[in-house]
Amino acid sequence: MPRVRELGFYHSELPSGALNAITDVAGVAVGHCTLIAGEGEWTGNGPFRTGVTVILPHTGNLYAEKVPAAVHAINGYGKATGFEQIREVGVIETPIALTGTLNVPRVADALITLAIEQNPHIGLGFPEDGRRGYATVNPVVGEISDCYLSDLQARPIGLEHVRAAIENAHSGPVEEGNVGGGTGANCFGWKGGIGTASRVLPAEIGGFTVGALVQTNYGRPEELTIAGVPVGRHIQPPDYQPHREGGSVMIILATDAPLDSRQLERLCRRATFGLARSGSLCHGRSGDFVIAFSTAYRIPDRPQELVTTRPAYHLQPVLHRFSQAVIEAVEEAIYNSLFMAETMTGRDGHIRYALPVDEVLRLMKTYGRL
Amino acid sequence: MPRVRELGFYHSELPSGALNAITDVAGVAVGHCTLIAGEGEWTGNGPFRTGVTVILPHTGNLYAEKVPAAVHAINGYGKATGFEQIREVGVIETPIALTGTLNVPRVADALITLAIEQNPHIGLGFPEDGRRGYATVNPVVGEISDCYLSDLQARPIGLEHVRAAIENAHSGPVEEGNVGGGTGANCFGWKGGIGTASRVLPAEIGGFTVGALVQTNYGRPEELTIAGVPVGRHIQPPDYQPHREGGSVMIILATDAPLDSRQLERLCRRATFGLARSGSLCHGRSGDFVIAFSTAYRIPDRPQELVTTRPAYHLQPVLHRFSQAVIEAVEEAIYNSLFMAETMTGRDGHIRYALPVDEVLRLMKTYGRL
Amino acid sequence: MPRVRELGFYHSELPSGALNAITDVAGVAVGHCTLIAGEGEWTGNGPFRTGVTVILPHTGNLYAEKVPAAVHAINGYGKATGFEQIREVGVIETPIALTGTLNVPRVADALITLAIEQNPHIGLGFPEDGRRGYATVNPVVGEISDCYLSDLQARPIGLEHVRAAIENAHSGPVEEGNVGGGTGANCFGWKGGIGTASRVLPAEIGGFTVGALVQTNYGRPEELTIAGVPVGRHIQPPDYQPHREGGSVMIILATDAPLDSRQLERLCRRATFGLARSGSLCHGRSGDFVIAFSTAYRIPDRPQELVTTRPAYHLQPVLHRFSQAVIEAVEEAIYNSLFMAETMTGRDGHIRYALPVDEVLRLMKTYGRL
Amino acid sequence: MPRVRELGFYHSELPSGALNAITDVAGVAVGHCTLIAGEGEWTGNGPFRTGVTVILPHTGNLYAEKVPAAVHAINGYGKATGFEQIREVGVIETPIALTGTLNVPRVADALITLAIEQNPHIGLGFPEDGRRGYATVNPVVGEISDCYLSDLQARPIGLEHVRAAIENAHSGPVEEGNVGGGTGANCFGWKGGIGTASRVLPAEIGGFTVGALVQTNYGRPEELTIAGVPVGRHIQPPDYQPHREGGSVMIILATDAPLDSRQLERLCRRATFGLARSGSLCHGRSGDFVIAFSTAYRIPDRPQELVTTRPAYHLQPVLHRFSQAVIEAVEEAIYNSLFMAETMTGRDGHIRYALPVDEVLRLMKTYGRL
Repeated sequence: MPRVRELGFYHSELPSGALNAITDVAGVAVGHCTLIAGEGEWTGNGPFRTGVTVILPHTGNLYAEKVPAAVHAINGYGKATGFEQIREVGVIETPIALTGTLNVPRVADALITLAIEQNPHIGLGFPEDGRRGYATVNPVVGEISDCYLSDLQARPIGLEHVRAAIENAHSGPVEEGNVGGGTGANCFGWKGGIGTASRVLPAEIGGFTVGALVQTNYGRPEELTIAGVPVGRHIQPPDYQPHREGGSVMIILATDAPLDSRQLERLCRRATFGLARSGSLCHGRSGDFVIAFSTAYRIPDRPQELVTTRPAYHLQPVLHRFSQAVIEAVEEAIYNSLFMAETMTGRDGHIRYALPVDEVLRLMKTYGRL
Repeated sequence: MPRVRELGFYHSELPSGALNAITDVAGVAVGHCTLIAGEGEWTGNGPFRTGVTVILPHTGNLYAEKVPAAVHAINGYGKATGFEQIREVGVIETPIALTGTLNVPRVADALITLAIEQNPHIGLGFPEDGRRGYATVNPVVGEISDCYLSDLQARPIGLEHVRAAIENAHSGPVEEGNVGGGTGANCFGWKGGIGTASRVLPAEIGGFTVGALVQTNYGRPEELTIAGVPVGRHIQPPDYQPHREGGSVMIILATDAPLDSRQLERLCRRATFGLARSGSLCHGRSGDFVIAFSTAYRIPDRPQELVTTRPAYHLQPVLHRFSQAVIEAVEEAIYNSLFMAETMTGRDGHIRYALPVDEVLRLMKTYGRL
Repeated sequence: MPRVRELGFYHSELPSGALNAITDVAGVAVGHCTLIAGEGEWTGNGPFRTGVTVILPHTGNLYAEKVPAAVHAINGYGKATGFEQIREVGVIETPIALTGTLNVPRVADALITLAIEQNPHIGLGFPEDGRRGYATVNPVVGEISDCYLSDLQARPIGLEHVRAAIENAHSGPVEEGNVGGGTGANCFGWKGGIGTASRVLPAEIGGFTVGALVQTNYGRPEELTIAGVPVGRHIQPPDYQPHREGGSVMIILATDAPLDSRQLERLCRRATFGLARSGSLCHGRSGDFVIAFSTAYRIPDRPQELVTTRPAYHLQPVLHRFSQAVIEAVEEAIYNSLFMAETMTGRDGHIRYALPVDEVLRLMKTYGRL
Repeated sequence: MPRVRELGFYHSELPSGALNAITDVAGVAVGHCTLIAGEGEWTGNGPFRTGVTVILPHTGNLYAEKVPAAVHAINGYGKATGFEQIREVGVIETPIALTGTLNVPRVADALITLAIEQNPHIGLGFPEDGRRGYATVNPVVGEISDCYLSDLQARPIGLEHVRAAIENAHSGPVEEGNVGGGTGANCFGWKGGIGTASRVLPAEIGGFTVGALVQTNYGRPEELTIAGVPVGRHIQPPDYQPHREGGSVMIILATDAPLDSRQLERLCRRATFGLARSGSLCHGRSGDFVIAFSTAYRIPDRPQELVTTRPAYHLQPVLHRFSQAVIEAVEEAIYNSLFMAETMTGRDGHIRYALPVDEVLRLMKTYGRL
């Protein structure tokens, strides 16, 4: 299974980072925990094709040292949690977890447990002041519905899986396709999953990196567009069984540029343009959300000084360059999520096929791309 | 313990409904499950002074027959969940649950379980179409931090408590004070909890009812204002031990007026004015949220017809009347939450005292209210 | 100058209306007033290449009979006016006018004058009640900066031009390219202007029409993508002189489906996907706004009854069909704005060239589209 | 006419600045231009009781050196302009002007003229680069409807008045009551107008100043509450003639704390609590808006460096202190706007009476405040 740029037809205006992954943003770590268990008929406790993916803005204590962040709902039909507080205070204080829809509460509960392990005063206060404090913690979880392949009702993902994903988290290359929160995903009627990509901005505007990671689970076959070529007009999954319209996509953006929450929110809105390039019609029942964060500075939970100084960036005159980085990285990450996913058979004999590389390549020739 | 209007000093411009409760809106039911267990030192599994309160827009199958709804963040520092989807599609499809902060995921998970019990195709699809559908469900949970009195870390509230609250839910009078999600609440340094009130609009504009239910847990003693009288300038809780600034308030509004989601959102924003009347300074760490719904019509999960007709209301010229109803109901519900709460001792010997009625009455005389 | 679909390479999934124009939505009228005056050096009072375009949801008294409406800022760097009130009350009560940036106040002032002519009680009250009323009116104006070709500082567009545009407004075919508010526009470094298109939804979901009208003035040459083909990678305007990054696009959507303001706002957000298909990078200094309205029902300024019934539509399960209509109509309207625009020389010898059809057609062959 | 705190009953928790005015924020200047002309019957060109007030974040070139800013719509039924761009980029680049509703476009046009006078490249570009640039400018104007006393239709306020207001602008004491944009205002059925106040925060959190300036024109007599006392329950204006419900209030906040746009937006939302203290029911037809800015740093139109450092403030843990400053300053500014306004007779013999100080003082005694 090749990443899209190994196939020779994908053109990028901006250069990618060394790994072409969200982990090109220094300090960012990604981890997966994948649950593949059971075969055949739905039993009420499986079969499972699901998991959880975590994105860590840094591998220290995120609660103690938060990062600036923003969220955006492209289409807010979804069960993502933690967004109200990000909108209000502009920071993320836990890993970002991506999982199957109905697992969200159990994954959020797990993030709370893990935050408490690291910060035992949460919800309790410090012994030295009579345990009167009442710090809380805001878990951030996104989701897609993997129910076509997996028993979603059973909600099998919990603390052990979230802990494993965080323990697995690392910088370096990111596993893509049928892993973690992308395990049971289907996208444009094909097998979807996790994908990632990155872009590096020119040195004269700071040389910053923008990375994207996506969890793709949206669209019908006829919508699929790759690099401008209307792939879905020509190829359809074998024995395609539509299910009720909908889906979802989660898009995570990371950058080392010193952007504040309001500026990151502007980047989030640009992710829509990358999603659009893949042919998405943004269905009513598709929960399409974007989360962005910067690694350029940290916001302490207990600041020593109220007045401080902070790096800042005049984004406005060069926003189109960052836009380009976001749009390209999101678009390429989506393609990677498709090309890196393998055919999977799940519950009740439901199958999602891998997008056939050879047929895509034939189309790319027809359309003058190869 | 009296409700505020039994004390003689509280003046209402609009008449209240028969019960002066959110349940004056026909069809609305409220249920509590209260957990009071353990004494003394924090053990890691208690003591508990917590619970869950549910508000049901109707007692049928809310998933099958949704109601129009809206949300508003007065200050979005909070862990409330389910808001993204309400913003996008303008409906509520589960009971609204109110609990302690870190219980939110477990309560949301319980609402999913209960929705599946009533609608077994959620997350699975109907047998007759090969179980290919993938309906999901959007649990709505609000919270306040009851950690001063209760072991919040242990997250003791789950399926059994949510189920009990829903089974307890009924129309008629609503229990107030130290019950359900208000059990461990503290407000302006005093004991807070659940409060409710309602207002009836004049017949010439439709005779509709507006009800409010609040879960109060915000503010410092010096801020407290009752009916315009600066109570907090004069009385303070005994041996008052401040904890880290913050708190939260959840405000639920119900009406039988045929308002749509956008109009309900305008009502939500008016709740701020009622909160302001209590003296709130809207702290940075206070999660102050409003949820509003209408019982005037229902939105089927599986509509027979795409084109339909619906009752509608020309709100704009009479919005100030609805505003008045919202503001007064929220203000009075807050006072009820204080006057109906009793002194409570919780974990680690922490005490929150009931607001002393006689001292308040003495102040009301000083300030010309009695 | 051909419209894009006469060129043979543009594929539409949904059928267009009879005119393939926003005026396919019954009752909608469009009018232009074009100001082309002066040549050569900037004088402080010209040369002018500017104008105003008006879109009328109906040709009656819009103030007396308002229409449901919504707005969305894709990138809110712009001087559009009237949006606050549309967000709050969800209606439009004047024609929508599109002009050059700095003309906005004068055009808004003209819309006020014209609304008063039709409704003499605005700002004054009726004689019979002692002229005590105080109805106001909310003019809606969008803009693009036509300053590269036109003297923008002089702000030449005022009452006479707005009046003429409204008097010119008619149903039937819409003039495109260098007319009205699009006269001095430049898009992707080429000549831009006004474009329009429409789509008809299948009878089984109601057979409604969605129309789009755009005023295009955004992007750099290298971004231009047409029907998925990276045109900007291959052709550039002759002697291209970049100016400071930026631009703008105004997108107007009309439908006869009985959608409410909240639903129309969801359509607005889908326009972003159509804009993305043209290759836009959504620059920081590009004011990209969407306004949508429905003609399916009217909201009287002085309702007889507060409680009423209204047509309604279950949009959620079929939103992707409306999305497709919006996205395709916006995309095609953009292409029409380019192909229908002619080369224009403006102030200071500045030239914007028409997109060369033959070169585009040659590229379309290379890319397998012809 | 006394300011409210000279009357002895008003209690402030936080100290005010030296002037108790928005100009206590160093560098801020305020100017008025008042137009009082004509008597008796409406003529179609008067009588006039109107004007314009300008608030300057600094008295330099605001376009060249912008200030961080935010806006908030408490109730967005209003014709304020310039808000889209403030939301997107978080800065103000012209004086803020406050006037009568239908004057807004002419005042916006005047601000454009004045910005061009100071920055001749706006809308044109610099001669040295062939005048190819296309900088635009975003005028910010708020409004209230002064039509009960003034001929609003005639829109008499334009360039000369705006220029005069800016030339009059100065630091030091601010004229209140029937001046500038508050000349024809009526509030709670009494004469309203311009009011201002300020608060100084404790040295241990930075010693910053928060100033408020209001233009009050909202509410019915029975709503009026002063310092918690239900004044409107007891006193009504003589021969009170209600007009159509509605009104408006503009609230301007200034601070020298180094807050960014997102933090300033949080302050804006707190202004609602100050407004609520005055008894406002937030009518549907009341355009209630807040604009906030910081003077702590400036954002150059043409930054030398993209990466910079900037002062920043950990607002979250002390937001309630800033809230208190905002709420108290807004509340007191509203009272000042009432007490400093004199009885005025306007067009068609319409009269708005000054709030009678002696009756208010008698009530304050009854209610234990004196």
